Amino acid sequence: MATRIGFIGLGNIGRPMAGNIVKQFPGTLVFDLDTARVERLAGLGATPARSIADVARGSDVILLSLPTSNEVDVVALGRDGLIDTAAAGTLIIDLTSGSPPRSKVIAERLAERGISYIDAGVSGGVAGAEAATLGIMIGASDEDMARARPYLDAIGKTIVHMGPVGAGHTTKALNNLLLALNTVAVSEVMALAVKSGLDAGKVITAINGSSGRSYVTDVRFPRYVMKGDYSHAGGMALALLLKDVAIACETARAHDASFFMGNLVHQLIMRIGGEIGLSAPNHSIAKAIEDWAGVEIRAKDAE
Amino acid sequence: MATRIGFIGLGNIGRPMAGNIVKQFPGTLVFDLDTARVERLAGLGATPARSIADVARGSDVILLSLPTSNEVDVVALGRDGLIDTAAAGTLIIDLTSGSPPRSKVIAERLAERGISYIDAGVSGGVAGAEAATLGIMIGASDEDMARARPYLDAIGKTIVHMGPVGAGHTTKALNNLLLALNTVAVSEVMALAVKSGLDAGKVITAINGSSGRSYVTDVRFPRYVMKGDYSHAGGMALALLLKDVAIACETARAHDASFFMGNLVHQLIMRIGGEIGLSAPNHSIAKAIEDWAGVEIRAKDAE
Amino acid sequence: MATRIGFIGLGNIGRPMAGNIVKQFPGTLVFDLDTARVERLAGLGATPARSIADVARGSDVILLSLPTSNEVDVVALGRDGLIDTAAAGTLIIDLTSGSPPRSKVIAERLAERGISYIDAGVSGGVAGAEAATLGIMIGASDEDMARARPYLDAIGKTIVHMGPVGAGHTTKALNNLLLALNTVAVSEVMALAVKSGLDAGKVITAINGSSGRSYVTDVRFPRYVMKGDYSHAGGMALALLLKDVAIACETARAHDASFFMGNLVHQLIMRIGGEIGLSAPNHSIAKAIEDWAGVEIRAKDAE
Amino acid sequence: MATRIGFIGLGNIGRPMAGNIVKQFPGTLVFDLDTARVERLAGLGATPARSIADVARGSDVILLSLPTSNEVDVVALGRDGLIDTAAAGTLIIDLTSGSPPRSKVIAERLAERGISYIDAGVSGGVAGAEAATLGIMIGASDEDMARARPYLDAIGKTIVHMGPVGAGHTTKALNNLLLALNTVAVSEVMALAVKSGLDAGKVITAINGSSGRSYVTDVRFPRYVMKGDYSHAGGMALALLLKDVAIACETARAHDASFFMGNLVHQLIMRIGGEIGLSAPNHSIAKAIEDWAGVEIRAKDAE
Repeated sequence: MATRIGFIGLGNIGRPMAGNIVKQFPGTLVFDLDTARVERLAGLGATPARSIADVARGSDVILLSLPTSNEVDVVALGRDGLIDTAAAGTLIIDLTSGSPPRSKVIAERLAERGISYIDAGVSGGVAGAEAATLGIMIGASDEDMARARPYLDAIGKTIVHMGPVGAGHTTKALNNLLLALNTVAVSEVMALAVKSGLDAGKVITAINGSSGRSYVTDVRFPRYVMKGDYSHAGGMALALLLKDVAIACETARAHDASFFMGNLVHQLIMRIGGEIGLSAPNHSIAKAIEDWAGVEIRAKDAE
Repeated sequence: MATRIGFIGLGNIGRPMAGNIVKQFPGTLVFDLDTARVERLAGLGATPARSIADVARGSDVILLSLPTSNEVDVVALGRDGLIDTAAAGTLIIDLTSGSPPRSKVIAERLAERGISYIDAGVSGGVAGAEAATLGIMIGASDEDMARARPYLDAIGKTIVHMGPVGAGHTTKALNNLLLALNTVAVSEVMALAVKSGLDAGKVITAINGSSGRSYVTDVRFPRYVMKGDYSHAGGMALALLLKDVAIACETARAHDASFFMGNLVHQLIMRIGGEIGLSAPNHSIAKAIEDWAGVEIRAKDAE
Repeated sequence: MATRIGFIGLGNIGRPMAGNIVKQFPGTLVFDLDTARVERLAGLGATPARSIADVARGSDVILLSLPTSNEVDVVALGRDGLIDTAAAGTLIIDLTSGSPPRSKVIAERLAERGISYIDAGVSGGVAGAEAATLGIMIGASDEDMARARPYLDAIGKTIVHMGPVGAGHTTKALNNLLLALNTVAVSEVMALAVKSGLDAGKVITAINGSSGRSYVTDVRFPRYVMKGDYSHAGGMALALLLKDVAIACETARAHDASFFMGNLVHQLIMRIGGEIGLSAPNHSIAKAIEDWAGVEIRAKDAE
Repeated sequence: MATRIGFIGLGNIGRPMAGNIVKQFPGTLVFDLDTARVERLAGLGATPARSIADVARGSDVILLSLPTSNEVDVVALGRDGLIDTAAAGTLIIDLTSGSPPRSKVIAERLAERGISYIDAGVSGGVAGAEAATLGIMIGASDEDMARARPYLDAIGKTIVHMGPVGAGHTTKALNNLLLALNTVAVSEVMALAVKSGLDAGKVITAINGSSGRSYVTDVRFPRYVMKGDYSHAGGMALALLLKDVAIACETARAHDASFFMGNLVHQLIMRIGGEIGLSAPNHSIAKAIEDWAGVEIRAKDAE
């Protein structure tokens, strides 16, 4: 009998991931509190569900894409949640950007009912979700990893089994710390370049052909910042990035590990969040630093 | 009549650059204080010169690859230097990682004798020099840039004309600041990853498929750090990286620009240099941070 | 009937505090695992006790001076601890440099048995303890504060009732963060002063007559650092200072408060602890920074 | 024959210093571009002068109190400045908060005409100037120091001869760095204290009785911040503090000295200056940090 799939959470990044799942697994049960979102997926071949319980009762494997561990707590462990409504043997793949210690607690609680839970940190933003090129970092037992593989293959490209439950979200937090750090640092460097009379377009081109390059110089700046595009298309809200930076710093403290750079980034993003609001897209860190410097980071001869 | 080429400075990175020049321009005059180095280039088709004056009198275009602006001062402006021995109309291409304000002074002094000077910051290390894939950032007039182009094409891949004299070395410093910053930050992140029980190999793979990736995660860590290779093959000495970080910080101060991240990196690299010595290759920053953490950043299943 | 007093913990700072209590309240019951210490206090007029229970049964008010909250846990809540052996109505004054959340838990557990607990952060080191000039920050109900007052007056000078249980240890952590911060900053400033050719003795005199002055410039440097005295006489171990710095940083995170300076100090003290060992006296932070700078911070004409 | 005294620059801090000079040396020649200020001093017994030259011709010793080294350049070296109008043998005491290297240049230029120059950094603000309790750090030859002594005694309390010319302004910069650092750090600590529910008044009292105390906790916070007084009465403009912080950082770089704390403070004050303006009084750093935290640092029971 074929495996039955469910997907809960059809937000900015959940929607395109669910779309890719539905493409390969037509009939996937989908649910979101916003019924308009459910209808849109149904138009792509999904089966609409009316509740979490509805998904639970009709699925062997359930993917979750929720804002934070708080919502995962409610969906997984809350009243009429998966813990009460999913059958033993169900596999839950949590694509939420969650807190590692809380992911472990959720896994333990579900395991008492014979439900498997794995944490899968995803990276690549809405664009990566749409193109099915996400980086995915998974915390799971070997057996659960093998079961989850086909669904992860349907939405991502670089899929790495990091270790036991929690390892996916930890790795995601470390990755996002480096993203945050480069976003702040490249913003400071590029604002300085403009202030000192250089052409931002040429500087980015030069760096991208040199050893200073990163995802931020290669993708984020050319695609968004240097077009002055601070809309929400680009990526997660600053609040979510800040959450991952905080998780990374907390992990460092728990291990007494030197974390000079991470702690400074944490402070700077808290401050920038205080200025521009935590609901701004994370790359608008560059906007704040442009304002500090009194310049705009744009190529002189914009195409 | 064909343009006659000269090359002064055959050190770690000068030697392979000169090799690529000689390949395309056989007979190039080469000079270094170390005559063994000159002989080696002669074996590849270069013409050995016995002095700076020797190069100057036989060349229309002269490339310099020296440790710092101090040596450029001596070669260009010192007794029997280029200023006294090169003909008006000569073009000097300075591939040294120099100080922008000093490059400007040198250019002005040479211009008084009708000699053109352009500053060209190179990035990519010995490996990039050997493969002729260097990133090169040039400060020059449009006319000088056009004259220099064939020789830069022979040694590099991403060649960007940044602006007037000084702009090449400024951009190089900003690029190297980002390199330094990622070296420190990735070292802290990877040491933490290992301390928290993750496999460094998997973490690097995951980051390289995600938004935290950079030249440092993509090239430096897999190629050197994660093999425990802290030999000198990898790149410039810590002293040279520190010099560029200092130039970037000084540029930020001169423009009253926010530079939180750069200044912290400056302090950390000064400290690390105090511990491991400034002649260590720059990626041994990771070695110092491994020692701080008491771990080694290696893949569990090294190939 | 006169109140009967007990004192548990006769270490570096506990011993002189107990001495001052005994001076005003002869016959105070004293206990320490090290019986030699107990004997010494007996010589000053204390009554030696053979166990915690012994103290508990003979006292209405018990003062504790232990290394960390771990030892307080054992003494207060462990087997044959105060929770089992002290009578309802007993008041416990905890002079340990404890963790605020753990102090609250201990207070709650003891309250279930009708035992009162107050947390009292002390500052001033061994010298302050001997001179009975300690600063004491208390977390307590108004009633318990009134009961504790005579015993606090016997050992300290600036006695401030900060708020409910936990407030004493929180304030202590904030105070110690400022101590740590000035120790690091004054060390960097004074090492620089010496490197730039100034006389450390004159610089300290000048600063102490100016707006840069602090307890560190006024007491710590003249009394210890500038005499090259890095023995243990001066104050608590680096580990205890680091613990309080960590508590302060954690409090900042819990309140989403900007804490740039505190977090940098935390990282630096972790690093310095890694170099010189956490059991070194806290002012040997200056020793580490002297080593970094390659100078000694001494007056040129030491008296 | 009695020494004739002159005083140039009657601003916020110059006025009360001149006042104290006039009290002991009636008839002192005073000058300022603002004639109203000159009149006010005349009312206290000073002799009004109409120009710099007027002061120069009638004085053996001239005190300067100007905003920055720029103004000292003009007054000392500019057209009709002291260099042209003062007699050989004149002693100039520069109380300006100047740049050490520029002080040295000014001293050299004046020495060519036989005019002596000493740099005297003052600390203590308007209040200290009024009470004649300033801290004064002097760079001078022993002979000049002896000549200057009576006039420095008339305006200050802690008077320290630091070394040769330049040493006064260097020490002043180091002192002001510590002032800046404590202002930022105490603001962060106190904002956190308030956020965590403590009474700011009690916290300041506790710290002032403990090891975290400094001039900032002892004077600045009780006198200004905790009364919400961010008027200009309290001290120099943020721009002047920032200038001294920059001088301290530059001195550290020149000596390759570790300066983690100073560099972070520099960045933070630059940022805060960008927010509240550099003409704000320096203790309004606390105002910016109050705004970041969304709290006011006030005693609960303000008198």
